[in-house]
Order: sequence, then structure tokens, then C-alpha cells
Amino acid sequence: MFLKNAWYVACMPDELSGKPLGRKICGQAMVIYRTESKGVAALEDFCPHRGAPLSLGFVRGDTLVCGYHGLEMGCEGKTLAMPCQRVNGFPAIRSFPVIERYGFIWVWPGDPGQADPAKLYRLDWAEDPGWAYGGGLYHIKCDYRLMIDNLMDLTHETYVHADSIGQKEIDEAAPKTSASGDTVITSRFMDNISAPPFWRLALRGNGLADDVPVDRWQICRFTPPSHVMIEVGVAHAGNGGYEAPADKKAASIVVDFITPETETSIWYFWGMARNFKPDDAELTKTIREGQGKIFSEDLEMLERQQANLQAWPERALLKLNIDAGGVLSRRVIDRLLEQEGGRSQAQAERPRAKEGA
Amino acid sequence: MFLKNAWYVACMPDELSGKPLGRKICGQAMVIYRTESKGVAALEDFCPHRGAPLSLGFVRGDTLVCGYHGLEMGCEGKTLAMPCQRVNGFPAIRSFPVIERYGFIWVWPGDPGQADPAKLYRLDWAEDPGWAYGGGLYHIKCDYRLMIDNLMDLTHETYVHADSIGQKEIDEAAPKTSASGDTVITSRFMDNISAPPFWRLALRGNGLADDVPVDRWQICRFTPPSHVMIEVGVAHAGNGGYEAPADKKAASIVVDFITPETETSIWYFWGMARNFKPDDAELTKTIREGQGKIFSEDLEMLERQQANLQAWPERALLKLNIDAGGVLSRRVIDRLLEQEGGRSQAQAERPRAKEGA
Amino acid sequence: MFLKNAWYVACMPDELSGKPLGRKICGQAMVIYRTESKGVAALEDFCPHRGAPLSLGFVRGDTLVCGYHGLEMGCEGKTLAMPCQRVNGFPAIRSFPVIERYGFIWVWPGDPGQADPAKLYRLDWAEDPGWAYGGGLYHIKCDYRLMIDNLMDLTHETYVHADSIGQKEIDEAAPKTSASGDTVITSRFMDNISAPPFWRLALRGNGLADDVPVDRWQICRFTPPSHVMIEVGVAHAGNGGYEAPADKKAASIVVDFITPETETSIWYFWGMARNFKPDDAELTKTIREGQGKIFSEDLEMLERQQANLQAWPERALLKLNIDAGGVLSRRVIDRLLEQEGGRSQAQAERPRAKEGA
Repeated sequence: MFLKNAWYVACMPDELSGKPLGRKICGQAMVIYRTESKGVAALEDFCPHRGAPLSLGFVRGDTLVCGYHGLEMGCEGKTLAMPCQRVNGFPAIRSFPVIERYGFIWVWPGDPGQADPAKLYRLDWAEDPGWAYGGGLYHIKCDYRLMIDNLMDLTHETYVHADSIGQKEIDEAAPKTSASGDTVITSRFMDNISAPPFWRLALRGNGLADDVPVDRWQICRFTPPSHVMIEVGVAHAGNGGYEAPADKKAASIVVDFITPETETSIWYFWGMARNFKPDDAELTKTIREGQGKIFSEDLEMLERQQANLQAWPERALLKLNIDAGGVLSRRVIDRLLEQEGGRSQAQAERPRAKEGA
Repeated sequence: MFLKNAWYVACMPDELSGKPLGRKICGQAMVIYRTESKGVAALEDFCPHRGAPLSLGFVRGDTLVCGYHGLEMGCEGKTLAMPCQRVNGFPAIRSFPVIERYGFIWVWPGDPGQADPAKLYRLDWAEDPGWAYGGGLYHIKCDYRLMIDNLMDLTHETYVHADSIGQKEIDEAAPKTSASGDTVITSRFMDNISAPPFWRLALRGNGLADDVPVDRWQICRFTPPSHVMIEVGVAHAGNGGYEAPADKKAASIVVDFITPETETSIWYFWGMARNFKPDDAELTKTIREGQGKIFSEDLEMLERQQANLQAWPERALLKLNIDAGGVLSRRVIDRLLEQEGGRSQAQAERPRAKEGA
Repeated sequence: MFLKNAWYVACMPDELSGKPLGRKICGQAMVIYRTESKGVAALEDFCPHRGAPLSLGFVRGDTLVCGYHGLEMGCEGKTLAMPCQRVNGFPAIRSFPVIERYGFIWVWPGDPGQADPAKLYRLDWAEDPGWAYGGGLYHIKCDYRLMIDNLMDLTHETYVHADSIGQKEIDEAAPKTSASGDTVITSRFMDNISAPPFWRLALRGNGLADDVPVDRWQICRFTPPSHVMIEVGVAHAGNGGYEAPADKKAASIVVDFITPETETSIWYFWGMARNFKPDDAELTKTIREGQGKIFSEDLEMLERQQANLQAWPERALLKLNIDAGGVLSRRVIDRLLEQEGGRSQAQAERPRAKEGA
């Protein structure tokens, strides 16, 4: 169960270079393509002629041409032409609202009438030259909510990412979690600790000493349908931590757009935005590679967790205080699903679940 | 749903060299093998002793020996012997009528009582020294009828095979389709056009200029259960086209034997027969390689189309005039299936299908 | 259907070096690990916190630490601690009785209250310095009873292992089979024959001539749940065969522990124990490699047989006198399954099965 009336990241612009992209989003097989004059379009990946996937075709001007028999499809899902055939009576296929902004292609898999561009998640930094961004995409066979849980409880860094961003002090700092409207925030502050390897690299990248005590912070923000932005950073200890001046810290935003493919698989768009040395492309590359390696460590855990939950569907999971971020995020999703007319997720949640055991 | 009372190509002779071949045909797992004195035999691939696949065994004289415990099986499916065991009471397994002819091994998966050799498809060219043949085998995960559709509507050449045999003029020449008894013929004639790359190669192969205007033809013949023979060729323009004398044209027969493996997969035997330079083995090889590459371009399309039709089972497909060859061929199959006692395919066809939209 | 109240081989000790092992046994996903002071432990591979597989974690002292969020699990399945959380109310997970002995780790997947160490299969040779052992592990996709059948009817050696241990005389020597309590014994004696390649190697390994006539024996012993020990050997002919003095023979015990993974897959622990030249590590290695190659020849046959039986579920298999070992072994299993409260296997057996056709 996922929200359908929402903007999801469908792909990155460089995935559309040259030919149409076939991608299933929220259970819906789509073809996504860049037109000559009408921007990016998204349609059902199904030719009304004989059912061929349109993503095997090609773009000519603003028209998507089916690669099987040449049916010419318009951006709105109406057949425009077909060699030597009258096309008036051809059934239309669904088109999906699309926006290209902030370095992503976004689609709205639900009711097009509700697809208000104003509902798009705002990424101010993406349009600010003082910031730089690097990221990537992973396909993971798990329920999208397991990834939300993962990102809203960074305790796992100590275990899954022990060699890079994990450290014992994360475990020992109790998180604070709160919800406000549809937003859930869980945060952790660790003062006067030693920086783990990834943050030493970031400190050096910003021209700062990496062998002095630091104050470290993690502020995770969930917003529907499944976005998690995490402000992370370290500052030389005693300079105000999160509030420290720019020349005393290395700070960035971990970007996580989780797009359900099916009920049990996701397209995971991850990245990092930073406002230091934004023009240093080499640093962007180094950070991206480091983050890519770290985030790949979650894959096996998430896929095996998913398999376990499917094998033991009757088991109640524990919801501890460290899980509050995920628990509250799922409540937001459930409330919105009910508004959307979806079945309540209360029952999809583990039946005998305990909170705060 | 496929016809069972019919001769299907099971394999090519070189697939039987040395050891038995296990192959599923029309949903039936068979072991096919060459005996010393009784020609080729086909049996259920199931040893009556403990269920081992007989195709893991070996042939000794006219006997198929099970590779597990040595049961000796005769060509008719009766156990002949087993070391130190009395075999009188052993249950028989099914044997399938087999014919080796025209360079193929044919089996009859249905009622053996109806397996009349006279019903075998005739390939006169295969026994005529004035002709040469080269071909191959592909396994494709699609309903056999999607491949019939494909071959009975060559419009797709313009899109799927754009670099070899496709050309815009195919789209623009309306096909003529007719049925007569169980045979369906759809044909296209394109006069005074430029030859596409594959046909330039064939013209040169026949010692003809390849840079002059040509008349091109395609005459597709469907016959049950699922054979499609296509007369194709080009002649230097103005010499009568299809009727042009041999020294003005390059003509051949595209051979397509489509053998269902399951409801959603096929063994596709493809090839090309030609009556020019029949002794030029190098030319046979060149044509075979060219055709193999071209025909491999259909695989992804057919498999993805099959997946799409399974994902959207309720969708009606369009049946345009270019589809008439496939539509009429399916009608022949449906009629014969009803005669065979199979469920009518009318309902297996897309329910809200439109004809000639 | 497999017996649950029994000791099964779970793994070999070297599979536990360094990190926990995840392995499914009798349908139960387990994590098996070596503790610092409490020996080997086996638990459900499911963290009560969020369902992560504990086998992705690590061992610290006697504690298994979950690799996701650091939950600390004790050997009995009770959560011991979790950073900054009270763990009193945490639900326990199942623990499985474990014994490490005879060079294997054994688990009891059923009722722990019945897990009597005295019920462990005895391998006296494993604790006798006069013997040497070498073996390995194969994963095979078949019902564990097909492997019992295989080992209780060595007729198959003539066909499956024609190049190593098979020979025509096996076929020709009728086996004698008898049951006594839960043990089934089937044996074959072949006098004054020529030794096949594997046994020539063994004779040479024991310093004996390999080109003289030998007496050969095979005595297969099934005991529940699914162990098959086979005394095998050859002696220079005329010295008493099985009873021949040690300097006239090469004898060994083929060791087969068959541990069901699921209803249709097994962990197959195979090996060979011998009491000649026990300190010759090179000979152990040579024999192990030879046996490993021979036993790998059964894999395809067993997996394809399993697939065939699933495809033809209604077919009765023959039960000849050579099959008596497997037939009687299945009867023992069925009787014990009934005692365990399992559904009788009579119906899982092929319905129209004939005995002694």
C-alpha cells in the first residue's frame, strides 16, 4: 500500500538521454521520455495496437513511436497517427503528470486532477549555486516502509556502517522524535566525540582538522509520500555544534527519495547536498563514491529483512523509542492512505505489535 | 491452447548427435533419440521405474537405456528389459509418432491414431538440389500466436529491423490478405524502391547490381498448426517483379516453424531457402548469420509483449488491416481447436477486441 | 514431511569460523554460531526487534549481536540487552538443541524436551585415531527421500558412475534387504571380479596390487531420520572378502547425512571414513576429491527426477527388489512420522505404486 496522489521521483535526467525509459512506479509500468518541445512525458508502457511496451520505441519530435509497428503516440496518451491507418477510434492509454525540477523527473501516479505542482517537495538548495549535489540510484527488493524505518533510525549506522559513519556514541545518544502535521522529525546530538572516517574525510574536504573532538548531529525529516531528508554534520567541538559558523564545520543534507516499484521493491534515489566548496567537482565525486559504498551496505539487510517478514507474517515487531521516527512516519502514511480511500494500514502493520516494550 | 493433432518440428537432426535430447513440446516433456535401425523415436521423458528423465540416459542399438538404473526402453514405450528384473508388468509410457524428413525431425503430440504421414507439411524445395537451406533455433518466452502475428504482419520490419530489411515503403504498401481453407495468405508488393541492406547483400550474392531500383515482394503463407512460409525477394525494377526471370532477381523463402513448448514459450525454427547459387556454402553461411541476427531482434519485443499482455489481461488489442493475417490465422487455429475438442479460443482472444478500428 | 524430533547434521565446524551461519533446516531458518564459552548455539534467524536475520550479525563472547541495531541475543533465544533500551518484555525466539560431536554440528529441529543427547547417532570411528575422514557438502533440490532411495540402491553406480565405481557385476548381483527395528540393511557381494577405477586407486593407496581379481562388498545401513552408512570395500579374491585381513583389502565407510532444507531440497553431507593409512593426509585429500567428483554426478539426476515427479504427481513408481532398501526405509520414516503425529506418508507415496512388479 502506497500513496498514489503524490509526486514521486521517477528518474534522474541522465536516464532519459537518447531513448525512452521503461520503469514501474507504484505498481504502474510507465514509459518516461523527453520530447522535443513539451518537456518530459510519462505514459502507460503499453501500445494500444498490440500491447508492445512503448519503452522499446523511440522519440521523434514530440511523438513517441512504437518500436513494433510504428504507432505514433502523443504525450497525453492519444494515438496521433499510424502509417496507413485511421486512428480516430483508438483507445487512449493513461498519461501521468510529470514535472522536471531540482535535478529530478517527478511523476504523479494517482488522479491527474489532483496533481498540483504546488504540492511538489521543495528543494531550495537544488537551485542555490552555493550548494552542490551528487547521488545515485539503487533498486532494492523491500517494502518502501522498511527503507523509511531504516532512515528514521540511524542507530543502525553503528552496526551496518561500522567502518564509515557508525560509532558507539550514536547508540548511546537517545533520539528525540516529534510529529507536526505530516512531517516527522527525529534528531540526535552527540557532543565532544571523535569523528568517524567518513566525517574525517568531509572535514579535510572542507579544509578543517580531522583529529580534534567534534560535535555531531543528525536531524531526520520524513515527509509524505516517502521522502527523508537528513541534516548531518560535525563541527569542531565547542563552537555551537549545528549552529557553528561555516568555517568550523562540515555539514550536508542526506537526500533520500524512496519510490515504490511494487509492494515489495523500491527505486531508491540517494544523494548528498552540501554548501561547502560547491564548485569542487572532485570532492563531489569523492563524497558520492563514499556515500554510494556506505548506502550499498543496507541492501542485503533490507532484502533479507523483507524476506524474513514475509516468511513470518504473523510476528509482531518491537517498536522501541529508537523506532519512533519510523512508527510516526507510518502513522502519517496510514492517515493519508485512509484519506485516499486506501485500506487502513493498521492491519498491514504487524497485528500484535507492541510499542515501547 | 495449441493444436495437438499436428506434425510439429521437434528438432534439427544435428541436435540428436550422440545422445538423447530432452525437449518439451506442446506441454509434453519428450525424449527424442536416434536408434540404430528404427530411425528417430520420441517418448515421454519419464522412466517408469523411478521417474528419472530418460533423456539423461543413452542409446544402445535400438534401445534407450535409462541413465539411473539401466531400464531398457523400446521405441514404442514398452520396457524391454532391466538387469535381473522381470519386466512384463511394467507400465508403458507414451510414444509419439515421429517422421524425419526435409531436414527436420517432426513429432505428433496428439492422438497417434490420427498421425497420418500424408498430413506432413510439404517442403518440396528441401528435396530439390536446386535449392539451399540454412537456419537455426531460438527459444522465446511468448505465446506461439504472438510469433504468428509477427510473421503475418511484416510492417514490423520497418521498426524492429530498421537496419537490415526494414524500409518506409513497407508501411506505405497496404497488404492484401485472404484465407482459403486452412491457409491464410497476406502479401505486399513494393515497386521501384531502393533495396535495404540485407537485400543488397543478397543481390550481390547472386551476382547482381545492388544500387539500382528494385521491385520487392513479401508473400506470407500461414498453415496449421503454426507454420509460416514467406516468399520474399527483390528484382531489378521493371522486369516483372515476383515474376522476373532468375537472372534479374534474388528470391528466397523464409521458413518459420513455431513449436509451442508451453502456453507461453516456443521453440522457433527459422531459416531461409534459396534457389540461387545453391552450392555456395559460404553464401549459405553469410545469409544464415545475417538472418540469425535480424530474427534475434524480435526476441525482446515478443517476450516483453507477452509480459505486457499477462499484466493487462483485460485489455482489448486493436486489429487493424495490417493485422488481418494474424487475425485470420488465429481463426483457422480456433476452428481446428474446436474440432479437436478444445475450448474455443474466442474467449482466449482479447474480449473487447475491435476489428478494423 | 520429515521427522522433526531427531538429530540432524546442521553444518561442519569449519562453516562456523568467524561469523554466524544462516541455514534453513527442516523448513526452519536458523542462525548457527559458536560462542566463546557455551559451545555452538542455534536460534531462529529472526531478530525480535525488526525481523532482521541474526545471521547477518556477529558474535561477541557468548552473545549474538544483531547486525542491524545491535540487539544482544543470548543462546537460549532471550534478548539480553540493547543499547539504551529495557529488554524485559522482549519476546523470545526459538532456540534449538545443538550438539557438536564426531566432527559435525547437530541440531534438533523438533520439541526440545525430547532432545536426548543419547539419541545422537554414534560414529565410533570418528573418535578412533585408527580412522581418517574426509567429506563435503552439496545442496540438492530434491526430496530427501530420493537421496535415501539413491543410496539404498547402488545399482545406479553402474549407470551414473560408470567411469569410477560402476561395473556390470553390480547389476547382476541381487541385493539382500532386511529391516530390524528402525534399521534397514541392504547388501551386495560380488566375488572374483575386476576392481573399477576408484577401487584400484584405493588398493594402491593401501599398498596393494590393483590388477588382480577382487571380492567386492556394499552393505548399506539406513537409520532414521535420514542417515545412510555404507560399508564398502574390495579384498584380493579368496581371502574372505569382507572378512579378509586388513593387509588384503581396502575398505571404508561411505558416510551420508541427509538434512532436509525444505520439502524439496536437501543439505547433503557426504564423506568417507577409512581405517587404513589414517595419517596419510594426501590420501585423504585424493579420496575426498575422487568421491566429491563421483557424488556430484548424482545431482542432475536427482534434481531432474524431482522435477519429473512434480510434473507427473499421479504416476505410480515401480518398486522392484533393487528398490527394497528405499521402500523399507520409507516405511520406517512413515511409522515414525505417524508416532510424531505427522500425516501418514502412505498417501505421499505414489498412490498406485506396485511392489515387486
